[in-house]
Amino acid sequence: MSAHKAMDYRAAGVDLERAELDKQGLAALLQSTKDSLTLSDLGLFGGLYAIPRDVADPVLVSSADGVGTKLKVAFLAGEHGTIGQDLVNHCVNDILVQGARPLFFLDYLATTSVEDGVLQRVVSGVAKACKENGCALLGGETAQMPGFYREGEYDLAGFVVGIVSRSEILDRAQVQAGDLLIGLPSSGLHTNGYSLARRILFEVAGLGIGDLIPGMEESVGAALLQIHRSYLHVLAPMVNDGSLLALAHITGGGLPGNLPRSLPDGLGAEIRTRSWEVPPLFRVLQRTGSIDDAEMYRVFNMGVGMVAIVNPREADVVLARLVDSGEPAWLLGEVVEGAGVRFD
Amino acid sequence: MSAHKAMDYRAAGVDLERAELDKQGLAALLQSTKDSLTLSDLGLFGGLYAIPRDVADPVLVSSADGVGTKLKVAFLAGEHGTIGQDLVNHCVNDILVQGARPLFFLDYLATTSVEDGVLQRVVSGVAKACKENGCALLGGETAQMPGFYREGEYDLAGFVVGIVSRSEILDRAQVQAGDLLIGLPSSGLHTNGYSLARRILFEVAGLGIGDLIPGMEESVGAALLQIHRSYLHVLAPMVNDGSLLALAHITGGGLPGNLPRSLPDGLGAEIRTRSWEVPPLFRVLQRTGSIDDAEMYRVFNMGVGMVAIVNPREADVVLARLVDSGEPAWLLGEVVEGAGVRFD
Repeated sequence: MSAHKAMDYRAAGVDLERAELDKQGLAALLQSTKDSLTLSDLGLFGGLYAIPRDVADPVLVSSADGVGTKLKVAFLAGEHGTIGQDLVNHCVNDILVQGARPLFFLDYLATTSVEDGVLQRVVSGVAKACKENGCALLGGETAQMPGFYREGEYDLAGFVVGIVSRSEILDRAQVQAGDLLIGLPSSGLHTNGYSLARRILFEVAGLGIGDLIPGMEESVGAALLQIHRSYLHVLAPMVNDGSLLALAHITGGGLPGNLPRSLPDGLGAEIRTRSWEVPPLFRVLQRTGSIDDAEMYRVFNMGVGMVAIVNPREADVVLARLVDSGEPAWLLGEVVEGAGVRFD
Repeated sequence: MSAHKAMDYRAAGVDLERAELDKQGLAALLQSTKDSLTLSDLGLFGGLYAIPRDVADPVLVSSADGVGTKLKVAFLAGEHGTIGQDLVNHCVNDILVQGARPLFFLDYLATTSVEDGVLQRVVSGVAKACKENGCALLGGETAQMPGFYREGEYDLAGFVVGIVSRSEILDRAQVQAGDLLIGLPSSGLHTNGYSLARRILFEVAGLGIGDLIPGMEESVGAALLQIHRSYLHVLAPMVNDGSLLALAHITGGGLPGNLPRSLPDGLGAEIRTRSWEVPPLFRVLQRTGSIDDAEMYRVFNMGVGMVAIVNPREADVVLARLVDSGEPAWLLGEVVEGAGVRFD
């Protein structure tokens, strides 16, 4: 070995020793989410997870997602502990829609340069939500990318794998005209519409991250960083016992973009816009940005985070069970002949 | 619906109609990788994949990864069709090391603004490598992130899920002192060391992407974009029949960083540096950057992309099988008492 050292990897912007240190902190976080089926610890090349034996004819359900420009709000607020929860909950909802419960999760976190502790706070949020959703954080990648991201910024993506018995897959083919739509409230913007919301609040309204939203008692940061809810615990019992025909997770594209993904071709939906009160945040965004209704419903969830599609004979029972479990669900509309989502 | 439209999502930098168009092109790519176990098409919220019935006591093996700043070389070269192959092959190698074959893959692709067709070329590369590795491209996320990435740039991450029978998991606990290391050649830098390599070639040497590397008949772009190999087809037969004790995929951290991940605590490795010829690209990088040997071996694979650990009684047979199958493998070194990797 030569002792001469003119340039090394650290000089090129990548610090392997620091990456190793970070990894040790991350190992404890992963450890905290282990369950009896998790067979591997960090340090192996791949994570190992045993397939549960209690699922007949098991099918894996998987989804990849990011959190979009909600990250920019987290950067502005200096709040890095919740964005990982947004990510996990979003992914868990996406596979719940197919009837699956999550088994494990992996994250991808990429940055050029952030302050000490930021990445750990992000992954802590990921681990917290994994525990809440009963899934193992099986691994992930923390990528140091010199020259990619702005100082203090990062991108975050996640992948979930869940399982469902083949006979219990929620299949839109079961849905018919006349079936009813039950709405479940969102907790805020969830993870969609942030580019427009930021433009309206920061540029048009000229608000700062700590300012109160006009007419509300919540700051811009607090309102925009409300954690994307997971619907797993409230809906899983009904998914398992066959009470639901289908589910639609209302993400990018809003009700018009997501409801059709859970309907057979040729069927559409009629939404009763007077059946719920659109939360004040959306009204402020609409008024301040002078956005028309169609665009609002296409970009934002408008207070509807998840839609359950049920047989009319089951609707009362499902609604009562949801309300009894503390979930303020309501009758949102109906499945109708003819494609598309109509609002009345 | 109001006809007034003062601001919409497109004005804020996100074009949902274009995203929809892209999605239709992507659907054809995903379709091209479908196998008999793929139960879902694009458009559902999660991808569905049936668990193969021919694997006794099945265990899932999963890994997430990115391609690091190799992307910067792809941007400079305007070559977007191979980076997805790097990603898939990297992930497939990572789970192969545990004995698993891949089932399905998902990608995450994030950008602020790229030219038409770029994202499709990236995902085409992902789909091509999925086909080559016999796994389904089950889904993915294409994220439009206004204000995150530079014009023409993107980040790319991926996530693979594979399967292995519990009794066939490659377990480093089986490895003992005296076991032999077999080296398999890399095809280039694979996906590691790019921040340093770019700094040396572009800044120190002042080369352009199309310039020939001094002493080589290959351009900087061609040499740096050599596709990260998949070792699946060459190694899977030996993984399945128990000829191998363990594998180590030589990625970030090089031989000293990765070999120990496949050795029991307290054991190390002795590498015979004269057993192979380090490819010219690494020598040019070392000379031009005045990098010492230790740093070279820590940052780059130095021509060794994968290491197989075998019982000395099996070594000749494994080597012969590899060479007969067209793989120029060689005896790289030996497992020894005492932690750490030593070079002689």
